[in-house]
Amino acid sequence: MSATTPSLAPAYRVTDLIRKKRDGLELTREEIQFLIAGYTSGEVPEYQVSAWLMAVVLKGMSRDELAALTESMLHSGQVLDLSDLPGCKVDKHSTGGVGDKTSMVVAPIVAAAGLKVPMISGRGLGHTGGTLDKLESIPHFNVNLSLADFRRVLQACGCALAGQTAEIAPADKKMYALRDVTGTVESPYLICASIMSKKLAEGIDALVLDVKTGSGAFMKKEDDAIALAQLMVETGNRMGKRVVALITDMDQPLGRYVGNALEVKECLHVLYGRGPNDLRDLCLELSAWMLFAGERVATLDAGRALAADLIRKTTAREKFRHLIELQGGDPSVVDDPTRLPHARHTFDLPSHASGYVSAMNCELIGMASMVLGGGREKKDDTVDPAVGLVLHKKIGDHVVAGEPLCSLHYNSELRLADAKHMIAESYIIEPAPPAARHALIRRVISEA
Amino acid sequence: MSATTPSLAPAYRVTDLIRKKRDGLELTREEIQFLIAGYTSGEVPEYQVSAWLMAVVLKGMSRDELAALTESMLHSGQVLDLSDLPGCKVDKHSTGGVGDKTSMVVAPIVAAAGLKVPMISGRGLGHTGGTLDKLESIPHFNVNLSLADFRRVLQACGCALAGQTAEIAPADKKMYALRDVTGTVESPYLICASIMSKKLAEGIDALVLDVKTGSGAFMKKEDDAIALAQLMVETGNRMGKRVVALITDMDQPLGRYVGNALEVKECLHVLYGRGPNDLRDLCLELSAWMLFAGERVATLDAGRALAADLIRKTTAREKFRHLIELQGGDPSVVDDPTRLPHARHTFDLPSHASGYVSAMNCELIGMASMVLGGGREKKDDTVDPAVGLVLHKKIGDHVVAGEPLCSLHYNSELRLADAKHMIAESYIIEPAPPAARHALIRRVISEA
Repeated sequence: MSATTPSLAPAYRVTDLIRKKRDGLELTREEIQFLIAGYTSGEVPEYQVSAWLMAVVLKGMSRDELAALTESMLHSGQVLDLSDLPGCKVDKHSTGGVGDKTSMVVAPIVAAAGLKVPMISGRGLGHTGGTLDKLESIPHFNVNLSLADFRRVLQACGCALAGQTAEIAPADKKMYALRDVTGTVESPYLICASIMSKKLAEGIDALVLDVKTGSGAFMKKEDDAIALAQLMVETGNRMGKRVVALITDMDQPLGRYVGNALEVKECLHVLYGRGPNDLRDLCLELSAWMLFAGERVATLDAGRALAADLIRKTTAREKFRHLIELQGGDPSVVDDPTRLPHARHTFDLPSHASGYVSAMNCELIGMASMVLGGGREKKDDTVDPAVGLVLHKKIGDHVVAGEPLCSLHYNSELRLADAKHMIAESYIIEPAPPAARHALIRRVISEA
Repeated sequence: MSATTPSLAPAYRVTDLIRKKRDGLELTREEIQFLIAGYTSGEVPEYQVSAWLMAVVLKGMSRDELAALTESMLHSGQVLDLSDLPGCKVDKHSTGGVGDKTSMVVAPIVAAAGLKVPMISGRGLGHTGGTLDKLESIPHFNVNLSLADFRRVLQACGCALAGQTAEIAPADKKMYALRDVTGTVESPYLICASIMSKKLAEGIDALVLDVKTGSGAFMKKEDDAIALAQLMVETGNRMGKRVVALITDMDQPLGRYVGNALEVKECLHVLYGRGPNDLRDLCLELSAWMLFAGERVATLDAGRALAADLIRKTTAREKFRHLIELQGGDPSVVDDPTRLPHARHTFDLPSHASGYVSAMNCELIGMASMVLGGGREKKDDTVDPAVGLVLHKKIGDHVVAGEPLCSLHYNSELRLADAKHMIAESYIIEPAPPAARHALIRRVISEA
């Protein structure tokens, strides 16, 4: 616990701290610790914190304030000490997108290389999916591990994938729920503190960030993604961690499968040495950076080669099978992906025109998957693991009128109509092929 | 009640309304009504309202939004209908200062002229006094009138002075308490809506605003006072009321007495045709504007003459006696002010230097009175009616070293020490007389 937990005679008046931020002044480390410790314990009420959060959204934070906020949130709960486990501890975090399923590939690859990957993941919300929901489509897979079980799985197979427990950064958990209902989500400072406090609580040495930008990302503008990445890299560095951020393209879904079980299936394709190029390339690139940051390899090229080799030799796939087994899931899905849940019906959506796919409204595609039941509109909605989309056409592809753009996997006719409409609307077909596109990896930020 | 009270299927998502204001966009009248009605009923939680309030503080409001907010707060409770009472209904409101005691003089004067003055007043907070606290220093005076009793007193003697009941603008009552603890007090828009919603709920036809500026006012800068005055005048005009605002000087206390019973005493001096010039002048000027706005006189000069005449003929004083009687107080204080509570001790604070009083820290003088027990640091502190200050020297006065600057009326030795120190610090003595000063009435704003 922090040494500044408020006592009977509080050191500061919360109203003064709110006013200070409102007036664009800088709070001290002690003031921020006081605020966050008081919020975590319940002594500082939500209505004061939400006013402060809005002032942060509109007035920003200095780097010192951001570091103090991240540290206070990190220390609001337990910080894993994994120093007794051999090997560098390294994790990857993505800011979220559509079809963004790399965790289930890179964690096994990097663990297969001998590093430890203690990965605490999230659930899907809105148009984006979440790793936990995807993993839960594997029959009996348990993402709700206690910290003790998390450590046991990590020790046994080198990676563990679980949800945020009550012990990890409780201030973040509480604050995230508050931000969601007070219009204070969209602040790079608050996003940075939220992500970094959780990730640093995992007891890692190094972190690779996948910051998405484009029509399907939270940061639609590349400049915003870069700014957030710089904040996260700098905040991590200040805390003595090696952090690198890849700014990656989310103008269209990653891979061709969108939906929970469908995405597990596509990850298995990659672990079998197949799968779509963009997904495979990004998985190899993220793995290479993790291996490099985790000091397993001396160069990125060596990391790329090692990752590819671990797929080719089936070591990564066997690591995934072991992980599923240890977390209570049915490992036979690795050999027979048809054991994953599948929807009762499919519908092939035909193109209304001939030409080239020039753009996709990627957020709308994510929403279509959500509408089918694959995602959540509100936090406590349940998800249908089986439904989703298989995209036959992506940007740059040629299409003939009547040819299917996308197959919708659905369980409810009622939901199909809306989703069809959304998908149709999200494809832009032009007579000529589109101009040069963004590279999948737009930029790398390794120092702020 | 508003027609937009949220039903089971709310018309808007509160988070969207917060985000809209956060992004500097304009909310519609219906959106603001929805928010305020939901807040009043408890369906919209405080943590959402405080985030919205902070966004308003930092992003401002359009005139349409301000009118909608004022109207929604006004209609959150009962609006008095005084149309059955003869005579124009007119009120005065001051934004608060030190020694600011005009209500107890102008209400009797204007009522004596045949108009109705339905005056809902507040309590002191921080360095400022409040009319209710002052009136309660009159033995047995009851400021907690029901709306029915308020109307009876008003009908019987033409004026009534009471506190805000639960029926009047409950949204404002709730919001004011929230603003106080969330750093969202200092917004001209929120101040305007708070004042105007309460005042318009009194069922008045016309309103005279006394907007204080200077070292003892909330608006230290004259430009801020003018901006607030313009907002209030325009908002009142939009609602079909005649509103005028006087920007008046608060670089030093008004009159020479500060403290609850002491201020009642000084008002009696004015009603007896005596009293200090500044206090008498401002009372006459405010009365003249009220008589003019209430269409009792055709010119301001006629208003000034009538007000002076009503003092001279003792009609105003008898009106005050009648008001005290009707509100349960001891009317004999009018004839014998020594029946008002008085402190056990007085201390004369000597000047440390000879010269001229060139400036006073008026806020600090108000704080000294508060420290003696005459005011509240927190809302639920109790006040001592007897304590306070009698200022022998004000700005421009000549003083000889050792001559008393101020008499402190006190009941506790413990509190005296702090107050003495504050008073001594607040007087600035210079060898030469100060340059030209602000006029008492700095400016009049009768149209936005």
